[in-house]
Amino acid sequence: MPTKVEAGSLEYIFHPRSVAIIGVPSDPAIPTGSALLDPFFELGFDGKLYPVNPKGGERGSLKVYPSLKEIPGPVDYVIVAIPAFTTPKLIEDCVAKEVKAATFVTSGFSELGTEEGRRLENEITKIARSGGVRVIGPNCFGIYCPKTKMSSGSGFPKECGNVGFISQSGGSYFYTVRAAAPRGVRFSKAVSYGNACDLNESDFLEYFTQDPDTEVIAAYIEGVKDGRRFLKALEEAAKLKPVIIHKGGYTEAGVKTAASHTGSLAGKNMIWDAIFKQTGVIRVYSMDELIDVILLFLSMSPPRGRNVGVLGVGGGASVQVADECERAGLHIPRLPAELLAKLREFTPEAGSMLGNPLDSQLSFWDPKKFGDSVKIFARWEGIDLMILHLGMFSGPSPQTHMASMEARREAYVSAARECDRPVAVVLHSVVSFPESVEIVGKWQRSCNETKLPFYPSTGRAANAINKFINYHEDRRKGK
Amino acid sequence: MPTKVEAGSLEYIFHPRSVAIIGVPSDPAIPTGSALLDPFFELGFDGKLYPVNPKGGERGSLKVYPSLKEIPGPVDYVIVAIPAFTTPKLIEDCVAKEVKAATFVTSGFSELGTEEGRRLENEITKIARSGGVRVIGPNCFGIYCPKTKMSSGSGFPKECGNVGFISQSGGSYFYTVRAAAPRGVRFSKAVSYGNACDLNESDFLEYFTQDPDTEVIAAYIEGVKDGRRFLKALEEAAKLKPVIIHKGGYTEAGVKTAASHTGSLAGKNMIWDAIFKQTGVIRVYSMDELIDVILLFLSMSPPRGRNVGVLGVGGGASVQVADECERAGLHIPRLPAELLAKLREFTPEAGSMLGNPLDSQLSFWDPKKFGDSVKIFARWEGIDLMILHLGMFSGPSPQTHMASMEARREAYVSAARECDRPVAVVLHSVVSFPESVEIVGKWQRSCNETKLPFYPSTGRAANAINKFINYHEDRRKGK
Repeated sequence: MPTKVEAGSLEYIFHPRSVAIIGVPSDPAIPTGSALLDPFFELGFDGKLYPVNPKGGERGSLKVYPSLKEIPGPVDYVIVAIPAFTTPKLIEDCVAKEVKAATFVTSGFSELGTEEGRRLENEITKIARSGGVRVIGPNCFGIYCPKTKMSSGSGFPKECGNVGFISQSGGSYFYTVRAAAPRGVRFSKAVSYGNACDLNESDFLEYFTQDPDTEVIAAYIEGVKDGRRFLKALEEAAKLKPVIIHKGGYTEAGVKTAASHTGSLAGKNMIWDAIFKQTGVIRVYSMDELIDVILLFLSMSPPRGRNVGVLGVGGGASVQVADECERAGLHIPRLPAELLAKLREFTPEAGSMLGNPLDSQLSFWDPKKFGDSVKIFARWEGIDLMILHLGMFSGPSPQTHMASMEARREAYVSAARECDRPVAVVLHSVVSFPESVEIVGKWQRSCNETKLPFYPSTGRAANAINKFINYHEDRRKGK
Repeated sequence: MPTKVEAGSLEYIFHPRSVAIIGVPSDPAIPTGSALLDPFFELGFDGKLYPVNPKGGERGSLKVYPSLKEIPGPVDYVIVAIPAFTTPKLIEDCVAKEVKAATFVTSGFSELGTEEGRRLENEITKIARSGGVRVIGPNCFGIYCPKTKMSSGSGFPKECGNVGFISQSGGSYFYTVRAAAPRGVRFSKAVSYGNACDLNESDFLEYFTQDPDTEVIAAYIEGVKDGRRFLKALEEAAKLKPVIIHKGGYTEAGVKTAASHTGSLAGKNMIWDAIFKQTGVIRVYSMDELIDVILLFLSMSPPRGRNVGVLGVGGGASVQVADECERAGLHIPRLPAELLAKLREFTPEAGSMLGNPLDSQLSFWDPKKFGDSVKIFARWEGIDLMILHLGMFSGPSPQTHMASMEARREAYVSAARECDRPVAVVLHSVVSFPESVEIVGKWQRSCNETKLPFYPSTGRAANAINKFINYHEDRRKGK
């Protein structure tokens, strides 16, 4: 299909001076609709906001306009939440109003797999393109850009970050931005782009590649519109910035489901694997793993190699973290005798395990000496990075353990801060109890403040770190 | 080494009339020591309790005896928490007092890897065996038996269950009992058994095999003392009851660490794999996975096959659950046209995905119709079990989503209750927020009450269910 709009920067899409939301319910008690308006209020969008409903009225302090046409002055960006069959008329109005971009929250298009759904999607795309309106969606939630105070999800953070994120799924978009927030991950822009009838994954990849506010690119993608262009966009992006992708539909069942979700041709998994390897993209298999890996690019300097020093509490935990590190692809080197001798000078013998992993209670009994242990590890050339771990429900008395968690938090965070090797902190816990959530929250915030990557399990930490190291090794080899 | 004590039932170990705790600190402000006494108070142990410390005094309402010998009347069970070098003298006192069993919390024995550590462990073992005292440990925490109100972990549940659990690691013992509690898993007995100088994994396996209170056997094991006996014990156990084991030390690094943790020869992983396959043991790779699998034996009837019907909310979530099911080894069959037609009668087209997985918002808008969807799936011969899933932070507005979580909980739980296929419920969530912990807690409790297995992610549910189905398939094949 020919397009009147030139490819290139989409900058203007993220900087609208005025936004109209078509299909805001006239009854303020109905939550859907204000779900589209509220995020703009929350972030304090300082452009003009125009709710639209044929019945008119008011929504908070805003006048509700009966139609797009009746809005006085220009409208840069339109959010569409009206039934699918009414959208061709609306997109014509957008063209007439010289709207620059429209997000179609509305679903009921090609993803239905029906002739009518495809026809309708083609119709709005054709009208939009020939009229110079860029379309995001349909069947999506559009844009989150904290810098310009645009948002499509309640509870999204106000602060800007440096991660550019696109998601073909609305649910994964909401989940990821919200799950990333407490972990200290912030976004430059995030886009839920759905069926991608006009703007697609390649457009956003190209944009993020050039965007100076974006340093890390992350994506949930089910299928692509133009394989050749996507491959090129991916190559360019991954040359300049880390790109981390969760490909939805990597099994036969997933591929079939993706077809009915976003009308995507999800393609063979082997091909995807080859593409990701060739371009240097980091592949992950869940939204949580996506965040686990992003976190390292924001808070860990690249380790020189994969030799891990592990310090923490518990013999069984030490065995398990050693297993998990090696299974993930990391290496736990044996400490040389002279280092063991140094540790032996101040580590109580009984109840400890002198070695790597080091199991000692020093973080509780003598935080300074715990810091010394970390230093002894970190100064050895045989260690490239450190994992400091603790289990919260692994002691005889959870109550006294709880009381000790503050002292340990101090000990772990200050030891990590003074360590001149990359460090990750793991607090393995049961978060079903209010106390544990409070304690985990405190550890999390301390780690965020100190720019330390923080994980809920050693398995997740080791897996993410291994992918992070692979990425940097490939770079060094010039792959 | 010859043993005076015959193998056979260890029943008496779990039924002491009197317990002495050697090494309770004389200063009540010192938490260690009361950590051993408190669990007995919490469970309301109704036998006699004797704290022992050379300084005498009182501990709560209890008189502290200066020595074991000075306790009037018999002592059945002794818990030892005094320095290792003083233990040979103590075990002699145990023999003199005709103590039946002693748990050595004390560490500093063979796990140190020193000649002196091994010598000391051999010495106490020899004295104990020739004197008829069974030893648990050293370097462990001993027994939890809610039926007889014995406990070695604060916060352990008072209720009895039917899972028998042994753990070579104290940390994994505490973690597992505590992490299992909110998920509704209760224990007949749990034992932290450490270095296993006398009673070892085979003794407890043999005991649990015969124990009428134990229906499921679970273990964390780093290494075994007598391979031949263990193999036989495992065979007998797995013939009668499901046995689920996390083998600590399945990598080279893990094996090395296990050697210094419990002095275990952890052995080659391939051999372990072969043993588990041959005996029909279910192998898991973390304590959380152990609980994930146990849960199914307590709350799911065995599915006839591996065809899963998936119902939930979200297109992206549906793609991801389909991927995760297939990756785990489950199968997502396509629905026949007549079933799709039935669903189409009452499922709104836009925003839904009619198929398997089924993505619909009916659980919120019309719980009865959601139940009807579940029934339509479950009545089809092509479906062997169901997964009902929901993401808590996957909607535009978490607040309204929160408000809707109660309605959805009702809808999910009652649909599952009325379903005549095995069902698992998944609530994918971010548990960093107090509200989410409260909501997850409510879902968890509802599922516990209804005996529904409940998971925090579809990946974990699918993985556990696949192992559960493999187990039953192998049984049916007579393996």
